Amino acid sequence: MERDEHKKCVISALTDAQKIAFAPLTFQAVNAMLELGLLKQIDSRPECIYVLKEELNLSEYTVSTLLEVAEASGIVNFNDGIYSITPLGQAFLYDEMTRVNFNFVKDVCYKGAEKLSESFITGEPKGLKAMFGDAATIYPYLSKLPQDMKNSWFEFDHYYSDNCFDIVYKIITPVSQIFDIGANTGKFEKVCRKYNKDINLTLIDLPQNIEVIRNDPELAGCKFHAANILEEADNLPEISGAVVMSQFLDCFSPQQIKFILEKVAKAALDDTKIYILEPFIDRQKFEGAKLSLVHTSLYFTCMANGCSKMYSFSEMETIIKDAGLKVNAVYDALGAHDYTLLECVKNV
Amino acid sequence: MERDEHKKCVISALTDAQKIAFAPLTFQAVNAMLELGLLKQIDSRPECIYVLKEELNLSEYTVSTLLEVAEASGIVNFNDGIYSITPLGQAFLYDEMTRVNFNFVKDVCYKGAEKLSESFITGEPKGLKAMFGDAATIYPYLSKLPQDMKNSWFEFDHYYSDNCFDIVYKIITPVSQIFDIGANTGKFEKVCRKYNKDINLTLIDLPQNIEVIRNDPELAGCKFHAANILEEADNLPEISGAVVMSQFLDCFSPQQIKFILEKVAKAALDDTKIYILEPFIDRQKFEGAKLSLVHTSLYFTCMANGCSKMYSFSEMETIIKDAGLKVNAVYDALGAHDYTLLECVKNV
Repeated sequence: MERDEHKKCVISALTDAQKIAFAPLTFQAVNAMLELGLLKQIDSRPECIYVLKEELNLSEYTVSTLLEVAEASGIVNFNDGIYSITPLGQAFLYDEMTRVNFNFVKDVCYKGAEKLSESFITGEPKGLKAMFGDAATIYPYLSKLPQDMKNSWFEFDHYYSDNCFDIVYKIITPVSQIFDIGANTGKFEKVCRKYNKDINLTLIDLPQNIEVIRNDPELAGCKFHAANILEEADNLPEISGAVVMSQFLDCFSPQQIKFILEKVAKAALDDTKIYILEPFIDRQKFEGAKLSLVHTSLYFTCMANGCSKMYSFSEMETIIKDAGLKVNAVYDALGAHDYTLLECVKNV
Repeated sequence: MERDEHKKCVISALTDAQKIAFAPLTFQAVNAMLELGLLKQIDSRPECIYVLKEELNLSEYTVSTLLEVAEASGIVNFNDGIYSITPLGQAFLYDEMTRVNFNFVKDVCYKGAEKLSESFITGEPKGLKAMFGDAATIYPYLSKLPQDMKNSWFEFDHYYSDNCFDIVYKIITPVSQIFDIGANTGKFEKVCRKYNKDINLTLIDLPQNIEVIRNDPELAGCKFHAANILEEADNLPEISGAVVMSQFLDCFSPQQIKFILEKVAKAALDDTKIYILEPFIDRQKFEGAKLSLVHTSLYFTCMANGCSKMYSFSEMETIIKDAGLKVNAVYDALGAHDYTLLECVKNV
C-alpha cells in the first residue's frame, strides 16, 4: 500500500516534470490558439474539428494538433468528438491578469529569458543587452522597444499600477506634508489633491522624469526635486511629515535599498513616517498572485536591471532594520493585488 | 455551497493560467538552477540560502530569486528557512525522459516555437527556416545544426528509438520476407538477424540514406531499395510477406500517409501483412507520455517539416481505411514507451 502511494507520487512528479519540460511549447500553442481564433470559437460553441476547420478556414492539421495539446494541458475538454472550453481556457480569453501576464512574457521576456543564467552570473540584464548592447537598465530604452514589446510592457506596468492610492491616502493622512520618492507620473499626488487641494506635496524623481512632469497642470503647486537617489552627491531635501515609496524599491537590489533608506533616514526627522508600498511574495492571498510576483523577479533579472526582484515582507524587514529603521505598522491586503503598506520610522 | 465550489474552481483555473502564462520563465529558471548547480546542491542536502550561496559561490540574489520561483512551482519545499528538493525537482536531475525532453525543448524548439502560428498558417517549419532559409525539412540540415542543438536532437531521437524490435520480430514471424520502409540505420534488420541469420530482408529508404547503410557489414546479404516514397515515379519492389513501417509515418501529413499506404497496397499481395509501429496519443498509459507526444507534434510543426504530427490510433485508423486497407490486429503497450503495432491488410 505504502509502495503504491510512493509509485503514485513518482508518476505524478514525472507528469508535472513533463509539463515544465514542454512548457514553452504549451505557451506558444496557447498563443497560436489565441491568434488563430481557435479558443474563441470553441468558447462560443463546442465543436468537432471538422466544423472548426471550416469555420476558421484552418487546416485540419492545425486544429487537431493544437487541440490535442490543449486537451492534454486542461485548456479544452474532448468528449464524443466534441471540443469544449474549460475554465482554464476561458482565463486566456477573459481574465485581464492572465492576458496581461501572458503578453508580457511573450513580448517582453520570452527571448531574453534564454539569458537568465548569464544574467544571474554577471548581475546584468543580458536579455536586454542582446537588444541594446550598452543598456544597464530597460527604463531609458522603453521608447525604443519594438511596438509589441512596448505595448505589452506598458500594459503590464499599467495593470499592476493600481496602487490603491485612495486607501493609502486615508491611512497616511492627516500629515503636514508628503514626499513621494519615485513619483513617476504623479498619479499619487493627483489622488491626494482630489481629497485636499492645498496639501503640501514634493515629487522626487530622476531629472529627466521631473522635466516631463513639472509642467503637468494637474500638478501645479507641487514641489519638484530632481535627484538620482543612488548618487552619493544627490541629496534629498529636508524631510518631515511623510515619505512615500510606492512600488519603487522593487527596482533596486537589497544593497541599493539599504543605501536609499539610509539616505531617507538621514534627511528625515525622528518622527517622520516612512511608508513603503509593495506587493510582497509572502503576503499574497492567491497562489496565482504569488506565482506572478516570483516570476516577475526573473523579468528584472534578464530584462530590466539584472539585480532587483519582488521581495518578501521578511526580506524587506531585514533590509529596513539594517538601514536603521523599524516597522511601526503593517497594512495588508490593500487593493486588487494584495499590496502591503509598511509604516516605518527611524529606530532612535 | 455551490457558489463556493464555483469560486474555488475559478481560482484554481486562474492559478493554472498563471502557471502557463509564466511557463517560459519557469522553464528557464529550471535551466538556470541546473546550470548553476543549485538543484543538485539542495538535493544533496537541504540548506538555507546563506549556506547555498557560499557553497556555490553565487549571489544571494541569484539563490533567493531562483528558489522563490522553484518553491512556487513545486520544485523545492521551504520550511523554517531551509530549502529541500521535491520529487518534481528530482525528476530534472535523475529522470532520463525528463532530461531528454527538457534539453530537446531548450536547444531545438525554444526559439523556433515563436513561429508556431506562422508555421501552421503556411504549412512550413518557420522556426527552422529562420535558421536555414531554404530548408523544407530539418533532416538534411541535422549535421549543420549548432552543437548543443545537434546533441539534444540526437539524444531525443535516440531516447525514443527503443523500438521494441525484439517483441515486434516475435509478433510478425514466421514470415517469408520483410520489407522495411524507412529502414534508417537498419537497426530492426540487425535484430531480425540475431534471431534468424538467413531471413530475407529488404531495406527501403531515400537514396542518400541507402548509400550510407549499403556497406554496413552487419547488413551484408540484405537487399536495398532506394526510393523517395513520395515521388510518383519512384516505385516500390513487388512486396510479399510483411512490410514494416516503424516510427516512419509520423514524419508525414495525413495526405502523405494515405499516398504512402496506397503505394504500399499497390505493391503488396492480398495476403501481405502491413505493420505500422507508432506511439499513439490515445494509447498511452501515462499522462506524462501523452503530454510528451502531443507536444512533440509542435516540434514537427515549427522545426521539422510544418505538416506532420504524432497521431492518435483513431486518426491513423481513418487514414488506413481511406487508403483501402483494414486493421487486422492491434498489439498495444509494447516496450518502454507504450508503442502500438498495427497489423493491416488490403481490404479486398
